[in-house]
Amino acid sequence: MFGTGQFQLYNPVRVIYGKGELKRSAEIFGVSNVLVICDPYVSSNEYFKEVMTGFNSVFIYNKIIPNPPCELIDEIIESVYEHSKGAPKFEGVIGIGGGSTLDTAKAVSSLLVSEGKLADYVEGKKKFEKRLPLMLIPTTSGTGSEVTNVGVYTLNDIKKPMTSPTFWADIALVDPVLTYSMPKRVAATTGLDALTHAIESYWATSTQPYTEGLALRSAKMIFESYEASLNGEEWAKDEMAIAATIAGIAFSQTRTTAAHAISFPITSFYNVEHGLACALTLPTLIHWTYKFISEKMDDFVRYVGFKDVEELAKRIEHMMEYSGFSLKLHDYGVKEDELEKIAKVSVEANIINLTPGNPKYEDVLEILKTIY
Amino acid sequence: MFGTGQFQLYNPVRVIYGKGELKRSAEIFGVSNVLVICDPYVSSNEYFKEVMTGFNSVFIYNKIIPNPPCELIDEIIESVYEHSKGAPKFEGVIGIGGGSTLDTAKAVSSLLVSEGKLADYVEGKKKFEKRLPLMLIPTTSGTGSEVTNVGVYTLNDIKKPMTSPTFWADIALVDPVLTYSMPKRVAATTGLDALTHAIESYWATSTQPYTEGLALRSAKMIFESYEASLNGEEWAKDEMAIAATIAGIAFSQTRTTAAHAISFPITSFYNVEHGLACALTLPTLIHWTYKFISEKMDDFVRYVGFKDVEELAKRIEHMMEYSGFSLKLHDYGVKEDELEKIAKVSVEANIINLTPGNPKYEDVLEILKTIY
Repeated sequence: MFGTGQFQLYNPVRVIYGKGELKRSAEIFGVSNVLVICDPYVSSNEYFKEVMTGFNSVFIYNKIIPNPPCELIDEIIESVYEHSKGAPKFEGVIGIGGGSTLDTAKAVSSLLVSEGKLADYVEGKKKFEKRLPLMLIPTTSGTGSEVTNVGVYTLNDIKKPMTSPTFWADIALVDPVLTYSMPKRVAATTGLDALTHAIESYWATSTQPYTEGLALRSAKMIFESYEASLNGEEWAKDEMAIAATIAGIAFSQTRTTAAHAISFPITSFYNVEHGLACALTLPTLIHWTYKFISEKMDDFVRYVGFKDVEELAKRIEHMMEYSGFSLKLHDYGVKEDELEKIAKVSVEANIINLTPGNPKYEDVLEILKTIY
Repeated sequence: MFGTGQFQLYNPVRVIYGKGELKRSAEIFGVSNVLVICDPYVSSNEYFKEVMTGFNSVFIYNKIIPNPPCELIDEIIESVYEHSKGAPKFEGVIGIGGGSTLDTAKAVSSLLVSEGKLADYVEGKKKFEKRLPLMLIPTTSGTGSEVTNVGVYTLNDIKKPMTSPTFWADIALVDPVLTYSMPKRVAATTGLDALTHAIESYWATSTQPYTEGLALRSAKMIFESYEASLNGEEWAKDEMAIAATIAGIAFSQTRTTAAHAISFPITSFYNVEHGLACALTLPTLIHWTYKFISEKMDDFVRYVGFKDVEELAKRIEHMMEYSGFSLKLHDYGVKEDELEKIAKVSVEANIINLTPGNPKYEDVLEILKTIY
């Protein structure tokens, strides 16, 4: 039962999904002169030339690095102005890559028509009011950045998320063929990120029936196709691409919860990939939250096809082991006396308050000890 | 498994759901001078004065009738110009009511800033390119018109649906309190319409995982709250309001299928309410389509909480009987020798081709005989 709640729904991104749609980029985007943001791996990839087909002029910036610093994005703007000898003539911006690249494209498309440095906006001193037309093309099946209004940028060595109405792209072009060449480890960690988005969006206290429906459907697809996608089966990679985008739409409305909050220090301190860091606490959180949302989780497991949440948690552990990941923190270089520090940083993330049962410092510490 | 398909997703409507949100209409809409479209029943209702609060000026047109003719909408435009002594100064249009009213508001908001008559657009001779800001406020829980880009207008005595990019509203304000005063029969027929939207969107051959998730969640809410909503329980009316809007988002992407196609002649020839006309064939169609989509329907019934599709079909029949509706066509004035004519008109509706198994004239005739 939900009725007494209150919610807003808004996601104006046009999602276009299809195998081989990449070659229709120019037709779909409908502009002629574009700036393309990517990383060196993407621009050297076989599929990359298909992005170019059909545009009159393309300026490629391919030096994106993970967790992009604000200064890098300011440099892109300068470099673009230099290249254009004055006002840039681009009619639109394309981001093609993983989450860091798509987030960079969001910021660049806004900064190109705004005053100041990105840090002004990340710190909330200024607000973006417009941007150039923006098309985002994911090459991984995980972050969902192509369908959210969130960007994450590094400011003074700390990852800072920000939202902006200008960060909703005009078009998210999801062509699963681009994910076929993902290294297995990237497929695994980004796939676990997508699963965490689905489950956290489903149980978040900010949830609503719309996001619950998307989360249910997305989670089922991930459970059906995760292992096969790691084994290189194309149908499974296609499913993962859809599932990740739908999970992205779900958490674009709800945000995420404790698994993401706890993942931040694990990634920052021990360099554990984001999706893997999220998945580490997920099975334990499934048990921990169950007493607060048992009926709702029973609906979830029944639809997805499990007997109970015990089987759900075991299935996620199996997915991680199948991918070659340890379930235990000590295997990632975590020392037992560092668990308190991880717990402390975890509860500083506001999203932890969206977790059913609202875990406090002591709860997080207990959860961390369980998986130590 | 879906991966090999291809789809687009696009629904830019901002949905705001909450009990009592109606009194924030002006704040939510963000404009001062508005044209309000409604019917006499709505404008005489207690809640109606809350729409006015906060606006500087409100011009009310309250003569909307069901299945609005194109000429009526042209008359509204004339009447508005007359009232304004030249170019109307409205900054926005509000539609508050059932599907006919919301569809009228869509057309009016576009026609006020376009040339020509509505018939030009319904017949496809012209295309709307802009409209005034538009907020839609449903007072029934059924049509989903507040979140679709479809409008249905009567042209030369025939109901004609049309779509337009200008028909996506800026805001769908869903305040369930407005549905509390619905007559029981209206609550029943519109609720059955919402259920049909959910089930048809789920099984349509144009479906996609996004709409499947929304359809699943919406259908479960309807099964949980339909009878209680007829009995006046507010929590159930709240649920029905959410479920109808979510089912609307689902079918805004997929369109509907045979139950809607067959409903058109039943409504036109025998004046059976739209939602009831849809529900009449739904149980039979559930059996008929099952052989083509058995795995998918098994997922559906498992999530919704039924043993099998047999139980699903029986449940819908129970909902209809509980509402006082006969399950048999002959009780609605249909003569046995008229079934062929109904079948003939049904298969003329393009949407019937979106039904799993693609029923032909003979199949529809057989279905009609089953429920005669």
